[in-house]
Amino acid sequence: MEKYNNGNGPGTLYVIGTGPGARDHIIPAAIEAIERADTIIGYSTYLDLIEELLEGKEVISSSMMKEVDRCRLSLEMAESGKSVALVSGGDAGIYAMAGLVLEMASQNDFQAEIKIIPGIAAVNACAARLGAPLMHDFAAISLSDLLTPWETIVARLEATASTDFVVALYNPKSKRRTAQIAQAREIFLKHRDPANVVGIVTGATRENEVITLTTLDKMLECEIGMQSTVIIGNSKTFVWRDKMITPRGYGEKYQL
Amino acid sequence: MEKYNNGNGPGTLYVIGTGPGARDHIIPAAIEAIERADTIIGYSTYLDLIEELLEGKEVISSSMMKEVDRCRLSLEMAESGKSVALVSGGDAGIYAMAGLVLEMASQNDFQAEIKIIPGIAAVNACAARLGAPLMHDFAAISLSDLLTPWETIVARLEATASTDFVVALYNPKSKRRTAQIAQAREIFLKHRDPANVVGIVTGATRENEVITLTTLDKMLECEIGMQSTVIIGNSKTFVWRDKMITPRGYGEKYQL
Repeated sequence: MEKYNNGNGPGTLYVIGTGPGARDHIIPAAIEAIERADTIIGYSTYLDLIEELLEGKEVISSSMMKEVDRCRLSLEMAESGKSVALVSGGDAGIYAMAGLVLEMASQNDFQAEIKIIPGIAAVNACAARLGAPLMHDFAAISLSDLLTPWETIVARLEATASTDFVVALYNPKSKRRTAQIAQAREIFLKHRDPANVVGIVTGATRENEVITLTTLDKMLECEIGMQSTVIIGNSKTFVWRDKMITPRGYGEKYQL
Repeated sequence: MEKYNNGNGPGTLYVIGTGPGARDHIIPAAIEAIERADTIIGYSTYLDLIEELLEGKEVISSSMMKEVDRCRLSLEMAESGKSVALVSGGDAGIYAMAGLVLEMASQNDFQAEIKIIPGIAAVNACAARLGAPLMHDFAAISLSDLLTPWETIVARLEATASTDFVVALYNPKSKRRTAQIAQAREIFLKHRDPANVVGIVTGATRENEVITLTTLDKMLECEIGMQSTVIIGNSKTFVWRDKMITPRGYGEKYQL
């Protein structure tokens, strides 16, 4: 740690998400924090997005570094007095780096100030691209069983499928993880109609964006990958033109 | 409708959320849409935030107008050829205007283009202010039973409490709605420890912001109001200094 120490006591660590991909989806508070920081740490994919903000700064582009190592380096540099921005995609507070940073800071009793800045998460961005699927109670569930027992994930899928939540599936599929999305669909089919609307957004707001509207019945025939978020509508969700819409309930009370 | 008709065929309706309150939490895509629109429609509270962007535009500040009327006016003006921005707080796609606009457009078969732009929702902003409570599977549940039967809400509270979701309660309490938050707490206490961490954020990012860390046991003693979001952690959520942290599970796999 000594190599970073500037003798001024602990610094600040900003934990920032740059949103789904499009530059015009990053909040000004995130840009400001990046501008304030001496050192920027993050995946190269996210740093490419804000290239012109990095000029004159120490940039640690960690395409190969593991999450734990990246958080540790960020924390140690901040602890030594630097102003550091740790950059990820989406909202740093939703399945991203904010929690790990704070968990590690707590275990090592770090004194550096840690500021979490919210961002447009995949769930916000994908919903907007699809129309308005999240207008009623919704849940986000990650299908990655790397850190969570599969039985826990299954229980949550069952619970939300049976009580008519709109459900956003994070990490639905990867090269090695292909069975989980099929099992999730089976669970939903126990409780929902095969025609239940499903929206899939891959690469939201990016050049390679693909938006697919489908049903529980047909969803496995659609392209789902590492960059996809799958949103399963509730029993009242419908499609009009190319929009996925979950009614809030106004139609039952008012003349629309 | 004829009074708005400029003879150019249908226009565009942008549905925009201005985030939790702070000006630096509005994404550039939202600002751009407001700049592009001829007419801005929204609650005065949200319009005050972007006052300097409204100059030279037709502004319909509808502090008294009901949601259905506001959406209808926005749609009719867009249909007649105008470029209209309908502005609300938070993310327009989460318990806000996007769904109602699309539902009404579908019922009246409107031809105007409708563009939904995502925003920082209360759940994103409150999580960041509290630390990192949403790092694992989470659900958003509104306690307002105005448009949703209370039994449906109870079933969803039960389902998420029993499967260890982090749960964000929207509309937890109002002057007239006071029993629901107490009932929600009772449901959680059937499944969770009384020491289960709870975070309450009122007026996130605004001048009147109040952040409270408490437990299921004591949460009803805390101030909860119309501007509050209540985030109930999962069984592993802990507090370190003034931060609410839900571990993702790295600590069980790696040396932090």
